[in-house]
Amino acid sequence: MIIIGEKLNSSIKAVKEAIENSDSKFIEKMAQDQASAGANFIDVNAGMFLEDEPKKIKWLVKTVENATDIPLSIDSPNSSAIEAGLKASKNKGIIINSITYEKKRYDEVISLVDEYKTGVVALCMDDNGMPETVDDRLKIADKLIESLTKKGISLCDIYIDPMVRPIGTGPQYAMVAIETIRNIKKNYKDVHIACGLSNISFGIPARKTVNQAFLVGAMFAGMDGAILDPLDEKLMSFIYATEALTGVDEYCINYIMKFKEGQII
Amino acid sequence: MIIIGEKLNSSIKAVKEAIENSDSKFIEKMAQDQASAGANFIDVNAGMFLEDEPKKIKWLVKTVENATDIPLSIDSPNSSAIEAGLKASKNKGIIINSITYEKKRYDEVISLVDEYKTGVVALCMDDNGMPETVDDRLKIADKLIESLTKKGISLCDIYIDPMVRPIGTGPQYAMVAIETIRNIKKNYKDVHIACGLSNISFGIPARKTVNQAFLVGAMFAGMDGAILDPLDEKLMSFIYATEALTGVDEYCINYIMKFKEGQII
Repeated sequence: MIIIGEKLNSSIKAVKEAIENSDSKFIEKMAQDQASAGANFIDVNAGMFLEDEPKKIKWLVKTVENATDIPLSIDSPNSSAIEAGLKASKNKGIIINSITYEKKRYDEVISLVDEYKTGVVALCMDDNGMPETVDDRLKIADKLIESLTKKGISLCDIYIDPMVRPIGTGPQYAMVAIETIRNIKKNYKDVHIACGLSNISFGIPARKTVNQAFLVGAMFAGMDGAILDPLDEKLMSFIYATEALTGVDEYCINYIMKFKEGQII
Repeated sequence: MIIIGEKLNSSIKAVKEAIENSDSKFIEKMAQDQASAGANFIDVNAGMFLEDEPKKIKWLVKTVENATDIPLSIDSPNSSAIEAGLKASKNKGIIINSITYEKKRYDEVISLVDEYKTGVVALCMDDNGMPETVDDRLKIADKLIESLTKKGISLCDIYIDPMVRPIGTGPQYAMVAIETIRNIKKNYKDVHIACGLSNISFGIPARKTVNQAFLVGAMFAGMDGAILDPLDEKLMSFIYATEALTGVDEYCINYIMKFKEGQII
């Protein structure tokens, strides 16, 4: 699994305060903790700072890159904030989170992906808003993948987000996301998934259990990446268990190693 | 989910001792606890008593039926033990656990299913031993379902066990079981599954996490029944969460109720 660590998000109160106060110790520790816990990318988001977003994301990028060599995921719908982050970065292998098939956003973000040679998270969304069905999602995914590869982006640098909607608002939405993932991985073996997990349980109690079960179901359908909290040990335990069950981790070698390291709970 | 409570099995030391000592209090409590925790059937097994098995299963059946109205699953490969249990029972809706497509066992058990009008757990196994692939399992399942229905057994009284083998002995075995389940439920909508879960994790550490992830993966593939420990609150929480995710529990109504009852952990 490709894990994009979600903790450095300005929508989390403590993170917002740390950015406000330029508390680099807090940010560095959170970056390092996620890296040690198995994150492959560290997501950075300063969306709560509105017009100050570019300045704040620049500081975040520099601070995180002081603390770890793990590549960043620059998280914004705003191309000037993304560009500020890209300019500040010295690390390789960055991804932009995210592009959509909305015309204005697509045009702005694709030029940054192209110029800075980054990977990109692509949301199954266009100017008609959030799609309802699996087919609608797959049509947008096809268009995104076709236009991104035409621009020279490799399939393996594309991370599709199937756009998870809460099961509290429609009982079909977990299966819609999971069947979207299954089809994308069937049609484009080399394209990755970067699924935002936690939206699935929005508005219902005991969210973690639902998120864990959704993660497992999506992994069995071929999900190979997600935006999640790598400090959630139970969630990480399920990633290792499901990798063993799906045969990604042959003969449970990694699972047993993680167990010996005390990481399976 | 149809839950067959697995706790009253003589291979568990405390249960064996309770049977030996005719400790009806212990057995009654274990039966009631499983029923309260959501079991739809109470499995009873006295296999460890060898030639005394029929006598012991008779006592077990009477003791459990004193304590609860939940129907029993009489668990033995031995037709004389099964018959002793059936004769002792006064409850309706019993299932026999289990028949296979091994000629001798099939012939002996089918006559009991027919005579006592029970449901039956049918293992995907024949005289060639344990099948290796999904196709081999499906061929045996087809033969079992065809011959059982020819005998007048309803599809909804058949519970197929896909024969789970440990992932520690072959990295493909979880997917083999899950694809078997998916195909059986696709081909025979009304047939149930009664999957023995815990064998999947035999020989590896932190088994519960693997069992939980396997349960979720199998439920997403259509598994609607399993032989498991209903007193394992985390496992039961995952059943409720996955029912919400797969849309069986529309708008999470049962999940939220279980949460309010303190049953989601």
